[in-house]
This record gives sequence, structure tokens and C-alpha cells, in this order.
Amino acid sequence: MNYPKTIQTLIECFKKLPGIGEKTAERLSLYTLQMDEEVLNIFSESLLNVQKKIKRCKKCNHLTEEDICDICKDKTRDFQTICVVEDPKNIITIEKIGKYNGVYFVLNGLISPIDGITPEDILLDKLVDRINNEKIKEVILAVKPSIEGETTTLYISRVLSGMDVKVTKIAHGVPLGAEMEYVDLMTLETALDNRIEVS
Amino acid sequence: MNYPKTIQTLIECFKKLPGIGEKTAERLSLYTLQMDEEVLNIFSESLLNVQKKIKRCKKCNHLTEEDICDICKDKTRDFQTICVVEDPKNIITIEKIGKYNGVYFVLNGLISPIDGITPEDILLDKLVDRINNEKIKEVILAVKPSIEGETTTLYISRVLSGMDVKVTKIAHGVPLGAEMEYVDLMTLETALDNRIEVS
Repeated sequence: MNYPKTIQTLIECFKKLPGIGEKTAERLSLYTLQMDEEVLNIFSESLLNVQKKIKRCKKCNHLTEEDICDICKDKTRDFQTICVVEDPKNIITIEKIGKYNGVYFVLNGLISPIDGITPEDILLDKLVDRINNEKIKEVILAVKPSIEGETTTLYISRVLSGMDVKVTKIAHGVPLGAEMEYVDLMTLETALDNRIEVS
Repeated sequence: MNYPKTIQTLIECFKKLPGIGEKTAERLSLYTLQMDEEVLNIFSESLLNVQKKIKRCKKCNHLTEEDICDICKDKTRDFQTICVVEDPKNIITIEKIGKYNGVYFVLNGLISPIDGITPEDILLDKLVDRINNEKIKEVILAVKPSIEGETTTLYISRVLSGMDVKVTKIAHGVPLGAEMEYVDLMTLETALDNRIEVS
């Protein structure tokens, strides 16, 4: 004897989401019974619309509801600096800092020979075309400090080495506020290697 | 600069669910972009339907899409035994054991003088009416072993004391598989008080 069909279906749907197991799906589904009807309507509509409305920006691959995203359309930004990230999520995070005024380019993942992900797969051609055509002065690489991230960083810096563009990558080291004793050895080694002079 | 409107709306909706914070809502919303379209349609439809279709069973208050729930309609069940629970969720759990063949009654919460929840609020009149009218032989109280649960158990047993019905409550004690050293003192005390003779 299970829940009535509508609830059971809703439980199955919640279970398809990442990190949501049987128990949580059950709890969330039962909770919807007491939610504001208007919120449920909006929730339902958004789920129906999300794939229909959301596209990738033709310039930078960021998520957008139009052809070009709000950032690429913003005339006040510095279009000669491109920050390269691996996920649209990272743009939102960097935007939250509120200090970066350049534009972005979202890679379609990271180069990973083991997984068969090549430079073509991650849209590097498109990035190189942009750098060629738009007089880009600086490319800031802001990808994950993993093997794939370093491979991608290295590859991009080599491809761009002949061009008149500065290639930088964000600093990797001990995060602010961290207890030194809990920092892992790889991070500490990187932090030592990348030490800077105290002025 | 935020996510496009549809995603932002979806994030806000996910955040209304219990235990879902900003980061999780963001992760779940972005995940919907890569979900199977058919699943999203069903998900959307279920959210729209859940409050419209789900009602309370007129006999036992269990969740149902009809007037009477599947359990109360099932002629093979023992209608002289009623198990009293505080939440429809508990029915699903007990049904999973597959051993109980009686029927149920879902209280509308538990008596709690501090929160101003009285016997009338939790539909006790309806339970007593059923016991009077349906020749019930046994009422099994299966509510949470908390102050509210014990208050409710005590109240029900007093109300029913004059009637020709056996009132029992489920055993509270050390759960199977528990390490004795991690069992809390209240549970251990209850387990000692309720010890049974080894045959």
C-alpha cells in the first residue's frame, strides 16, 4: 500500500534530482500539500519553461533567455578582458564579488584525455576566434585547480602563446580564514611555490 | 547580475521547500536544464495537481484521491482493529512491514497544552465515534514517545476506559541493532521498566 498516485509520482520526480533520496523526496512531496497554491503554480510553470526558455549566449555560452546574455550586452563592461570559467555557476559567484568588470567565456567542461574530452569538445576554437577578432588584452583562466583544470590552463596558454594577449590564471593557495593545520599538503605546496613578496 | 529569470524563479521555489538552502536550490535548478523533458513535464503537472487531487479519507483521514482510501476500502482487512498514528507517513511505514492487517486512524497532530492543541483539534471525537459505532475490539496507539505523544496516549486511554475496547500502545525500548553504549538514558529507563519475561 503506497501513497496516492499523485504523491507517489511527485516522490519519483523529486528522486530524479541529485542528492535527493527516498526519504527526502517523501518529505518534500508531502510538504507540497501545505504550500501556498500560488507558489506551487509558479514552481510548476518554471519547471515546464526552464528548458524552453533558457539558451546559451552566442558570445560567451552563459545561460540566457535571449541570444546574447546581459553581461555581453552591458556596454559599461571591459570587453578586452575575458575571464574563462568552466560553468555558468562560476560567473554568478564572480559577479557576487562585484569587482570584476570584464566579460566571460564559459567552457563546455575541461580537457580530460582519460574521459575523451578534447579541446574541440570544450569550445576552445570559439574562445580563440574571439581573442583573435576582438582585440582581447587579457585572458584570465579561472578553472578548478585539478588535473583537468591544469591541463586546460596549460593547453590554452600554449595555444595563445603566439598571440598578443596576456594570459593569467587565478591564484591558488591557502583560503582566507583557514586553519593552517587543516590545509591539505597539495594546497600548502602550491601556496609555498606561489609565494609573493611582502611589500 | 543574477541567473536568467526562469532559473532565478525556480531557485526561489526550491528554496521554499524544507531543508533546501540557497546553494542546493541553485544546484537543483541548474540540474533541471539537463533533465529528461518528459520527466520535467510530469514533475510540473504533479506539482500543479497535488493539492487539487489529494484529499483526506472520510473514515481514517489518510491521504487519498477518492472519498475513502484504499486501506479503508480493502475488504480483506480486519476492521475491528484500529491503529492510531499522528501522520499519514506512519501508515506507509507500517504498511511496509507487511504484517499489520487492521485499519488506521490518522490524528490531526498530538495534544499539546503548551501549543494550545486540544483533543478537539486532533479529531479525537471522530475516533471515539468510530470506536462506538463500529464494534472496535482493539485500539493500538502508535504515536511518538514524546511528552505530546504520552499525553495523547493517556488522554485516549482515559476516554476509552469505560468502553468495551482493548487499548494498547506500541513498545518503546532499545531499537534492534543499537549499540547499548549509544542508547540514551530515557530510552534505557523505558526499556528496563517495560522488560518482559524470557520464556
